[in-house]
Amino acid sequence: MELNLKNVGLMGRLDDISILSTVQQIAIFLSSKGLNVILESSLAEKFEPQYQAQWQVSRLKMMGEVCDLVIIIGGDGCFLGAARALSQHKTPVIGVNRGKLGFLTDILPQQVESQLTAILAGDYTIESRFLLECQVKRAGSPVGNGSALNDVVLHPARVVQMIEFELYIEGKFVYTQRSDGLIITTPTGSTAYALSGGGPIMHPSLDAIALVPMFPHTLSSRPLVVPANSEIKLIIGASKLTAPQISCDGQQGIQLEVGDVVYVNKKSHKLNVLHPLQHNFYEVCRSKLGWSSRLT
Amino acid sequence: MELNLKNVGLMGRLDDISILSTVQQIAIFLSSKGLNVILESSLAEKFEPQYQAQWQVSRLKMMGEVCDLVIIIGGDGCFLGAARALSQHKTPVIGVNRGKLGFLTDILPQQVESQLTAILAGDYTIESRFLLECQVKRAGSPVGNGSALNDVVLHPARVVQMIEFELYIEGKFVYTQRSDGLIITTPTGSTAYALSGGGPIMHPSLDAIALVPMFPHTLSSRPLVVPANSEIKLIIGASKLTAPQISCDGQQGIQLEVGDVVYVNKKSHKLNVLHPLQHNFYEVCRSKLGWSSRLT
Amino acid sequence: MELNLKNVGLMGRLDDISILSTVQQIAIFLSSKGLNVILESSLAEKFEPQYQAQWQVSRLKMMGEVCDLVIIIGGDGCFLGAARALSQHKTPVIGVNRGKLGFLTDILPQQVESQLTAILAGDYTIESRFLLECQVKRAGSPVGNGSALNDVVLHPARVVQMIEFELYIEGKFVYTQRSDGLIITTPTGSTAYALSGGGPIMHPSLDAIALVPMFPHTLSSRPLVVPANSEIKLIIGASKLTAPQISCDGQQGIQLEVGDVVYVNKKSHKLNVLHPLQHNFYEVCRSKLGWSSRLT
Amino acid sequence: MELNLKNVGLMGRLDDISILSTVQQIAIFLSSKGLNVILESSLAEKFEPQYQAQWQVSRLKMMGEVCDLVIIIGGDGCFLGAARALSQHKTPVIGVNRGKLGFLTDILPQQVESQLTAILAGDYTIESRFLLECQVKRAGSPVGNGSALNDVVLHPARVVQMIEFELYIEGKFVYTQRSDGLIITTPTGSTAYALSGGGPIMHPSLDAIALVPMFPHTLSSRPLVVPANSEIKLIIGASKLTAPQISCDGQQGIQLEVGDVVYVNKKSHKLNVLHPLQHNFYEVCRSKLGWSSRLT
Repeated sequence: MELNLKNVGLMGRLDDISILSTVQQIAIFLSSKGLNVILESSLAEKFEPQYQAQWQVSRLKMMGEVCDLVIIIGGDGCFLGAARALSQHKTPVIGVNRGKLGFLTDILPQQVESQLTAILAGDYTIESRFLLECQVKRAGSPVGNGSALNDVVLHPARVVQMIEFELYIEGKFVYTQRSDGLIITTPTGSTAYALSGGGPIMHPSLDAIALVPMFPHTLSSRPLVVPANSEIKLIIGASKLTAPQISCDGQQGIQLEVGDVVYVNKKSHKLNVLHPLQHNFYEVCRSKLGWSSRLT
Repeated sequence: MELNLKNVGLMGRLDDISILSTVQQIAIFLSSKGLNVILESSLAEKFEPQYQAQWQVSRLKMMGEVCDLVIIIGGDGCFLGAARALSQHKTPVIGVNRGKLGFLTDILPQQVESQLTAILAGDYTIESRFLLECQVKRAGSPVGNGSALNDVVLHPARVVQMIEFELYIEGKFVYTQRSDGLIITTPTGSTAYALSGGGPIMHPSLDAIALVPMFPHTLSSRPLVVPANSEIKLIIGASKLTAPQISCDGQQGIQLEVGDVVYVNKKSHKLNVLHPLQHNFYEVCRSKLGWSSRLT
Repeated sequence: MELNLKNVGLMGRLDDISILSTVQQIAIFLSSKGLNVILESSLAEKFEPQYQAQWQVSRLKMMGEVCDLVIIIGGDGCFLGAARALSQHKTPVIGVNRGKLGFLTDILPQQVESQLTAILAGDYTIESRFLLECQVKRAGSPVGNGSALNDVVLHPARVVQMIEFELYIEGKFVYTQRSDGLIITTPTGSTAYALSGGGPIMHPSLDAIALVPMFPHTLSSRPLVVPANSEIKLIIGASKLTAPQISCDGQQGIQLEVGDVVYVNKKSHKLNVLHPLQHNFYEVCRSKLGWSSRLT
Repeated sequence: MELNLKNVGLMGRLDDISILSTVQQIAIFLSSKGLNVILESSLAEKFEPQYQAQWQVSRLKMMGEVCDLVIIIGGDGCFLGAARALSQHKTPVIGVNRGKLGFLTDILPQQVESQLTAILAGDYTIESRFLLECQVKRAGSPVGNGSALNDVVLHPARVVQMIEFELYIEGKFVYTQRSDGLIITTPTGSTAYALSGGGPIMHPSLDAIALVPMFPHTLSSRPLVVPANSEIKLIIGASKLTAPQISCDGQQGIQLEVGDVVYVNKKSHKLNVLHPLQHNFYEVCRSKLGWSSRLT
């Protein structure tokens, strides 16, 4: 299906000005196709004043509303932030890799014009990726919340200090665990931090959540995979040395206290990610994870 | 919902005659409730002639057709065989544990009358468990097939001999692997052989299949979880020492040759398992797997 | 061999005054056997003044010098601290468990008199446990050091932040790793934090060190076991978000900077631990780790 | 130290005649250096008659006695067989890789002349690798034995069938296990089959044995590392479906019966392996195992 676009937004990582040339290249390319280019405002500020005048600028909050498509230039971290900001809207996104791993940003800068040309012409696949939302309640009242495309992680603020919590799924008691924490991951996050923790790889189209214990103080623990619409609840136990935290995509932190209850659920909105036609999840796993490479 | 039953079938393990007293107890109990009792024929033959006359008898093949409910008395192995035989029909099943582990057979013999009374009165939960079917093709022609409630396992006929195969999912190449084999497991099988192989635990309601490599000859392998409706295809590679096999639930074996193609798919029919109301999957994991038991 | 003792030291955990009754019981018992009882000074201060006068008191630093045997009352954490303080001396130690796990403190309080009687009479086994020492150098100059009976752990000060380092063993480059850290463990520590991280169990008499990666950002990592007299060297790499740390037995911390070099070696002094005759390492693993408990 | 040699033996894999050119090249090279070349007899038979006359020939059994050095041309499997045959003698060995992995055969065929020249001139390192010996007793009488450079493996003759055994180390009961088997590995074998089973990598100079459970039917199992001089004893338990086996280096098999006792010990003789000076175990792990390769 040909994309019927007017306004194309550009977002990018802000900590590396070397990406600006790629941003500019894409902006010029899109303008040449007769499209309105809208830069996210903090990205726009990185440019010299003479460039800033060329393009429209929008605040992060409005990007989802004013854009028909958003192109994210940077690494996976940058993509995660943009994804959370856009997930209220149906605006599809495309990732251009200017970071290290680029699991989510699958267009290479050197191929950006040919691949965008193809995508604009309707040669793309669309993938819906769900997000998690989490809410923390203290004595029944909400004290914090967040959303995550990759994972919600319960962990001590400091390493080498154990925490204790109870896990409930769909109202049923699962286990009490003493460990360094728990990773609650979407399929998208299954190739990120959860993978380091020994979790399974989940295909992006799977409607499931995995719970991966971090350094459990037991021999008999194992990752658990449940339907994505499961209600997950953690009750934070006592721990004399440390106040645990919740992190969303490793970026937002919520400080916890003993007795706090953490609810984690699938978000109702999904993120639509566009890929070039030749995109293949398993190929990405093989090339970026060295997955199942045979002994030479 | 109260069960509206006339004919209740009984099946059981055949290698241990000590279960016959439990079979008899259940048969007498059901008769006293005004129900027709139908024994699977090879089970009936284990009884002395004077008992055989008391109950109706049916061949295994017909059990699904003539019974409104089948009670399986034995261990998980026995339950798996019965499940495969009944999966063409919608007949619900109940497992009474007279085996070792009893993951699937969750009614204890000493509670059989009280729990059956409750179930007959409508106090039960019903769980749909999907099966896998596999078909082997040689030069395009089918040479064998099977079905499995737990798992389809590709393995060498003999241990300590490696095999090689290519894996495709939904037509996409996933990896070539040299290993001792591959376990393709349903959520039901995730607490059986796949668990020994390092696979994740999957909740029975999850619509997913896990692929767990067996002793892969690589450091970078990892279990993979995909939607249950995925088309899984294995192409058997060369291996000088051994002819690999496919096993379904560890019971049926299909001998393979180099170049054979193995297709594994979710079966369209599901097995309906009845449980007492207090049945809790996580509780079974904790008590039967010592799951996540904390260091004392 | 009968122990030829005059002065027996008592050390204990200081955060739980409920252990004082056990300390007192042991002190009275030892006095009744004609032995001099010497309390470590910070433990002595926990007692009411009227008790403090009854026993000799010594500073922690002097305990190793003045005592022929030291009894440690508390949990594994307390034992680790005492072990490091005493490891310069040959003074043997005995652990009495008043903590949670008690891997190192194997005498139960309720059996303390009978087991001490047996040990004093010569019915004991003696076990030498080696310690690790680590030294941190910055631009060639030492900036910190520590010793550990369990483990030396390199980790970010905060969780969910990756660090990078190079590992050299006996001067040979082993690997560069991006991960949450590295656990360098003695056999004694192999049943503690390293076990949670997936490391092997090592028999206490094994002269080996294991290196267990923490959440390595790779699929192809694996624990490595090397001879205990190996020179281990870590060079700390750049990491924008966090300053990593070295922890010894989870208790002492050394703050690191990029480029710091961490040396870890086997200490020349060993700790001599006395055990009751029936002490069996594998029995402790089975009972305290639920090790290799079979599915029921 | 310059090697003082007269007789150099050549052994090689017999299933691939393409290696004969390498054998011939080495033989001619050695002759040109004034050394006596002695071919192992079954290797010699692979040559055309006109070549066979050129070199001395010896039976496998005598190779260790008549040779001052043996060069093994082939893969790891071939090296293992030669190692077991030579381990009674002190004859050092060199491996030339004409197989797949070449963990043990570290000289590349294209470098064979330059590296042999260097080694003959004294530029080599020497490494002692210990072997395991195992003996099976039935009702107290020996019924089989074998030796292994890599591993002794207890396993069912057929896959997907569990066995049960008791493990004793140094006379102490360790655990009863139901599993697919047990791998008892030397450091040399730690990068072979045991690695696929999740065992740790052990440096070749480590004097230790690792016991790696194969698909244990429990969540709480873990590899165990013990001093190499430990007495290991297995008692084979009942299993209705299968007769387990012992394999040495995956090559020799001993059929077991219920109640058989298997003893595994370190062999008194060691194998001396010569390596080029630049040989580095960790480099081999990185290049052949893709060990700890970082995500790209």
